[in-house]
Amino acid sequence: MNYPKSINNLIECFKKLPGIGEKTAERLALSILDLDDEMIELFSKSIIDAKRKVKRCKKCNGLSEEDLCSICKDKNRDQKTICVVEEPKNIILFEKTGTYKGLYHVLDGLISPLDGINPEDINISSLIEKIKKEKIKEVILAVKPSIEGETTSLYIKKLLEGYDVVITKIAHGVPIGVDMEYIDTLTLEMAMETRTEIS
Amino acid sequence: MNYPKSINNLIECFKKLPGIGEKTAERLALSILDLDDEMIELFSKSIIDAKRKVKRCKKCNGLSEEDLCSICKDKNRDQKTICVVEEPKNIILFEKTGTYKGLYHVLDGLISPLDGINPEDINISSLIEKIKKEKIKEVILAVKPSIEGETTSLYIKKLLEGYDVVITKIAHGVPIGVDMEYIDTLTLEMAMETRTEIS
Repeated sequence: MNYPKSINNLIECFKKLPGIGEKTAERLALSILDLDDEMIELFSKSIIDAKRKVKRCKKCNGLSEEDLCSICKDKNRDQKTICVVEEPKNIILFEKTGTYKGLYHVLDGLISPLDGINPEDINISSLIEKIKKEKIKEVILAVKPSIEGETTSLYIKKLLEGYDVVITKIAHGVPIGVDMEYIDTLTLEMAMETRTEIS
Repeated sequence: MNYPKSINNLIECFKKLPGIGEKTAERLALSILDLDDEMIELFSKSIIDAKRKVKRCKKCNGLSEEDLCSICKDKNRDQKTICVVEEPKNIILFEKTGTYKGLYHVLDGLISPLDGINPEDINISSLIEKIKKEKIKEVILAVKPSIEGETTSLYIKKLLEGYDVVITKIAHGVPIGVDMEYIDTLTLEMAMETRTEIS
């Protein structure tokens, strides 16, 4: 004995999503039964819609329903600065700050030879091409501070040697509003190294 | 700027599920994009199917796609024993043990005057009626050991006073395979009180 077949099917679907195990899938599938009919139709349609409509922006490789995403289409943004991120969702994080006004480039991964991810497996060549062709003035490397992140940053920096482009990386240090005691040693070391003068 | 509209719609859908906050909804919605087309169709259809097909069993109030669930239809099960549970999903838990061979009854809640849940708000009257009409021999109260659980158990016991039915409750005590130090005092107290002789 188990759940009715239609519930089992739904549990199996939820289990396909990352981080959703047997118990959570069961809980989510059962909670679907409590939604009203309108919400059910919307949910079902949204899954199809998202998959069908969302593609990658031809310029920055971010998510978009059109050839160019709303950021790349925005002529008011600084066309000479590119912020390089690992995943499409990272763009949203920076956009939420509301202060960055340049463009983006999504790598879709970081170089990681141990996992078999080489430079040609991620979108580096299109970035280099874009930088050279569009005379980009600054490339901000906004990837996570890991071995993979550092390797990717150094690789990009090396490819751009001799070109008139400033390459920067975002600061890594102590987050705002966090007790110092919760910060790991490596972060503190980086925060100390990249200290700035109080003006 | 935000995600494309179809992704935002999907994020809102996931947020309607219990325990799913903004960040998780975002992660789940984005992971939908990675599923293949076949899986997408199945997921979308399963949501509709589960809602449309699953109803309550007319006898035990458990989940079923037909008027009677597979347990209530099974003539090989002990028709004179009813295990009373709070929610439909509790049935699955007991069925997984594979040892209980009686029937079930889903209350759909527990008496909780503080939350405005009175005896008439849950399925107690249909249980009492069934016990009397079908000459049930044993009613096993398998609700959680909380004030609400105890109140509900006592209420049911009171309604059945004078009837020829044995009312039992499942044992509460130290779970198997758990270090004693992680068990709370109340559980230990109950485990001590309901100790059994080693035979």
